Amino acid sequence: MLSIAGGFTSSETTLLLLSIGLMLGMGRALGELAKRVGMPALLGEIVAGILLGPGLLGRLLPGLHAELFPRSGGVFLAQQSLVLLAITLYLLVAGMEVNLRTVWRQGRAALWVGGLGLVVPFGLGFVPGWLAPDWVGGNPEQSRLVLALFLGTALSISALPVIVRTLIDLRLYKSDLGMLIVAAAILNDLLGWIIFAGVIGLMSSASGAVDAPSVESIAAGTLAFSALMLMPLRLLLRRLVPWVQDHGRWPGAVMSLAFIGALLSAAATEWIGIHAVFGAFLFGVALGDSSSLREETRATMERFISVFFAPLFFVSIGLRVDFVAHFDGLLTLVLIVLATLGKVGGCLAGSRLGGLNLRESLAVAAGMNARGAMEIILGSLALAAGLIGERLFVALVVLALVTSLASGPAIARILRPAKQRPKLLGYSGAGLFLAELRAREAESAIGELAAVIAREKHLPEGPLRQGFLERERALSTGLPNGIAVPHLRWDELPAPVIALGISRRGIDFNTSDGLPVHLVVLILTPTANRESQLAILGEIASTFPDRAALAGLDGVHEWEQLVGWYEERLAARNGA
Amino acid sequence: MLSIAGGFTSSETTLLLLSIGLMLGMGRALGELAKRVGMPALLGEIVAGILLGPGLLGRLLPGLHAELFPRSGGVFLAQQSLVLLAITLYLLVAGMEVNLRTVWRQGRAALWVGGLGLVVPFGLGFVPGWLAPDWVGGNPEQSRLVLALFLGTALSISALPVIVRTLIDLRLYKSDLGMLIVAAAILNDLLGWIIFAGVIGLMSSASGAVDAPSVESIAAGTLAFSALMLMPLRLLLRRLVPWVQDHGRWPGAVMSLAFIGALLSAAATEWIGIHAVFGAFLFGVALGDSSSLREETRATMERFISVFFAPLFFVSIGLRVDFVAHFDGLLTLVLIVLATLGKVGGCLAGSRLGGLNLRESLAVAAGMNARGAMEIILGSLALAAGLIGERLFVALVVLALVTSLASGPAIARILRPAKQRPKLLGYSGAGLFLAELRAREAESAIGELAAVIAREKHLPEGPLRQGFLERERALSTGLPNGIAVPHLRWDELPAPVIALGISRRGIDFNTSDGLPVHLVVLILTPTANRESQLAILGEIASTFPDRAALAGLDGVHEWEQLVGWYEERLAARNGA
Repeated sequence: MLSIAGGFTSSETTLLLLSIGLMLGMGRALGELAKRVGMPALLGEIVAGILLGPGLLGRLLPGLHAELFPRSGGVFLAQQSLVLLAITLYLLVAGMEVNLRTVWRQGRAALWVGGLGLVVPFGLGFVPGWLAPDWVGGNPEQSRLVLALFLGTALSISALPVIVRTLIDLRLYKSDLGMLIVAAAILNDLLGWIIFAGVIGLMSSASGAVDAPSVESIAAGTLAFSALMLMPLRLLLRRLVPWVQDHGRWPGAVMSLAFIGALLSAAATEWIGIHAVFGAFLFGVALGDSSSLREETRATMERFISVFFAPLFFVSIGLRVDFVAHFDGLLTLVLIVLATLGKVGGCLAGSRLGGLNLRESLAVAAGMNARGAMEIILGSLALAAGLIGERLFVALVVLALVTSLASGPAIARILRPAKQRPKLLGYSGAGLFLAELRAREAESAIGELAAVIAREKHLPEGPLRQGFLERERALSTGLPNGIAVPHLRWDELPAPVIALGISRRGIDFNTSDGLPVHLVVLILTPTANRESQLAILGEIASTFPDRAALAGLDGVHEWEQLVGWYEERLAARNGA
Repeated sequence: MLSIAGGFTSSETTLLLLSIGLMLGMGRALGELAKRVGMPALLGEIVAGILLGPGLLGRLLPGLHAELFPRSGGVFLAQQSLVLLAITLYLLVAGMEVNLRTVWRQGRAALWVGGLGLVVPFGLGFVPGWLAPDWVGGNPEQSRLVLALFLGTALSISALPVIVRTLIDLRLYKSDLGMLIVAAAILNDLLGWIIFAGVIGLMSSASGAVDAPSVESIAAGTLAFSALMLMPLRLLLRRLVPWVQDHGRWPGAVMSLAFIGALLSAAATEWIGIHAVFGAFLFGVALGDSSSLREETRATMERFISVFFAPLFFVSIGLRVDFVAHFDGLLTLVLIVLATLGKVGGCLAGSRLGGLNLRESLAVAAGMNARGAMEIILGSLALAAGLIGERLFVALVVLALVTSLASGPAIARILRPAKQRPKLLGYSGAGLFLAELRAREAESAIGELAAVIAREKHLPEGPLRQGFLERERALSTGLPNGIAVPHLRWDELPAPVIALGISRRGIDFNTSDGLPVHLVVLILTPTANRESQLAILGEIASTFPDRAALAGLDGVHEWEQLVGWYEERLAARNGA
């Protein structure tokens, strides 16, 4: 019987649907499980692939495995095309997390950390690739220069999505230190991908195939395409996105714009001779820069990808390779040591040069060492392109997972002493409390509360408000629990100051879930004491873990009531 | 150069990404355009396919067209597998709109309309298929019985998603008449698909292929599978969905459950020998029945599908066939006349037998005549299976579009005289107004307002509240504009009664956008006067088109203020 998918027989259709259902089913189930125990979802998804792949199912039921996941034919091509689509859309979302303005705002420190955090591990990776290409597992038919360049890139890449998620978990994402880490990682990723695009191009050029483009055309193409995407297209999207948001139905229209742009950009880079995913990534960067793109749109797209496409890709990683047979403990260990030494050393040096103290520098270095999905994508591209063998690929995947898992606990341990719990309200008072904010929008709410601080603490109102607003525009401080925490550091301040305002109706703070904010906490800390900001942000996040905690705000009309309400929450938290 | 999608060359990868980008780009752009001028999106999407397909691009640039949309090879298989995935997920969502409880609640009338609305057009379609198989364009190698059965099914199917959208546009969806139409369409669709699954099975069985299952096994498989999905699986999902919602992260976990279930069910039906889409549809029916599945989850999934997968499928319809060459005006006209006569006649008879008056019956018949996507899917399955030729396929697509487009205007014209605008507040009064509802949940808000009606109109409070609640449980009356309109008909009531309540904090009414409701309008109308309900619902929907219109509620604390506020809105609307 013919299927609607002309070209497939009925039994191929059955196998295709069954295999995708199994990949998604196992991937999502183990991914959720991994999250439950505090690990990244992609770890569970890769394990699901190993279970369905040659690692387990291929050993237990080789016949079934060969039918479900064949190595050629229609079902194979269909699965591969889905994986291609999945990775293209995944890179789009990864690119959208790259916020170029964040880098400029963080300035010198971000440049140092991003630069040295790239150069040092790149050097450490280049050496073994150049000296011992066979031992690390390069393809002997490939040039050792290409392999050395690839390994340098692989050790120096960092994984922005993992870093962002770690910072969110540690409640550091919206802090200044978190922004610095993110900015450095953005710079690092952007440079890393541009280098990698060149490497992939070089490799196909060196392969001597008939249709291979020349080195010069690859290099020119990479640079020209990057420049095109990051300048004219980025500026075009800044105008186009608001237009689409106004004229199309939200969020479908903007999402479609993103998907279509990513697919066409991916086709363009593949045509140039660098890889498809690079085009999708750069389109994401250009799109994510548009300040009118709402946080909620970004979050909706991420959900869309993470529910369907991302699991398909990561499961396919485990499916592709026999992880059990190709695991080389020594190689993996050497790579982990080199990668960590290079990244931590480079970032530490960069942070110190950028003016951070030692503890902050260590935290930044620990954060930057996470590699996650980006490393895995890089590895799988190199594997598919025949640059590396399965042994090195498996080592890179393990490297990615280990560095990602270690990053969060390491930051937490480094910063732990800073987490003495302040009594939030100790920095505030009746004069710094507004029982009902008049504002309906974030900027006017910040203005109201900044005026209160200026009056009570005899500070200049204009610069104060301006400082809070600039910080807010760089990255919204609205948290998903219905609280916003605009913060600013101020040079000559003896102790932190906090102003609180309640809005029963709710204020739009451009939160990722689109829900309104009911409690606005303006935080002003001494510039010299960076840790007080982290401590206060942590305190707020742990006292009010979710929206439900705000229900009691309903009955708060006076400062004394607020204090009582807050003490209750504190007691409940400490009791729990 | 090898691509990450092993098995594809770099130029194939480029073409694949480019073709999907173009399909999505053209499809979404023309789909949005169609919506803008009040047509269904799928019309624009099909036109996009015609422009990219043999209809236009194939004529203008045959070389480019053949490269982008080849008829064999890797790119072809990849595109076809995406279309298969798209239609599988589309049918899942279509199935989820089938709410079996709605059918039981509407009882006798729905059975009559659904039954006769299926049987009469089925008969009218069977006759030409049986008598003139060649003229209607059947494949001469197929049995004429199979063709006649198919054509009967094709003329009798109705399109639930189109009907739901039409009713929403006309503000009739939440009315009792709207519920009846939906219930009848559900019954109609369910039976139609079961028949069609049998027809497809019969056909492959009659084809005499080596691996073709026997007629008996097809029939037994269809019935056994339907019974399994609609009984044990449905009951299992009723328990599983709340568990997944509690234990996974919303809405990703439930969406994944839906996708995985649909893919595996589709594989199962394809394996049985009926078609893959049938399994996805039935799984959707079983899942949609779970009362704990939130409206918002359903809406999120529909958005997910309609932004990416649905456009790919409908564009592929236009791509597959040369609509210009295969359009047969006479055949199309005959089918439209037969289909409309059969459907309108059958539904009219059914509605009258079910106890509706003539005008209501005409409205029901006009609504049921929409065919939309379901017809197109049926046709494309039959085309892919070789049962029908391209001429009949094109006629069926045009039939689907024409009947869908005609349906809305026809209902609106039939019901127009009923739309004399009532002054909403004329049915209410100071005693029927609560300036601040105490309730936080839908059921208690209904209870508060029902008590008010009972007190003012001397009606029994218990049965009144019970009636409103039962109606509410069948289908939430929360509208996306922040208003909820629980309604009930009451036997011995001289005139409609309306009670209004305001909630500044908002009440969860299980709306499709998940946003809270701020104005609750309880509507009690005389049973005898069905049109008064429609008129009041229409009045509310057009006076408060969106949430912004509710901003003024903030200052309403007395009945006089509410009247003034409402008159202002009315004046603004009439002025605009």
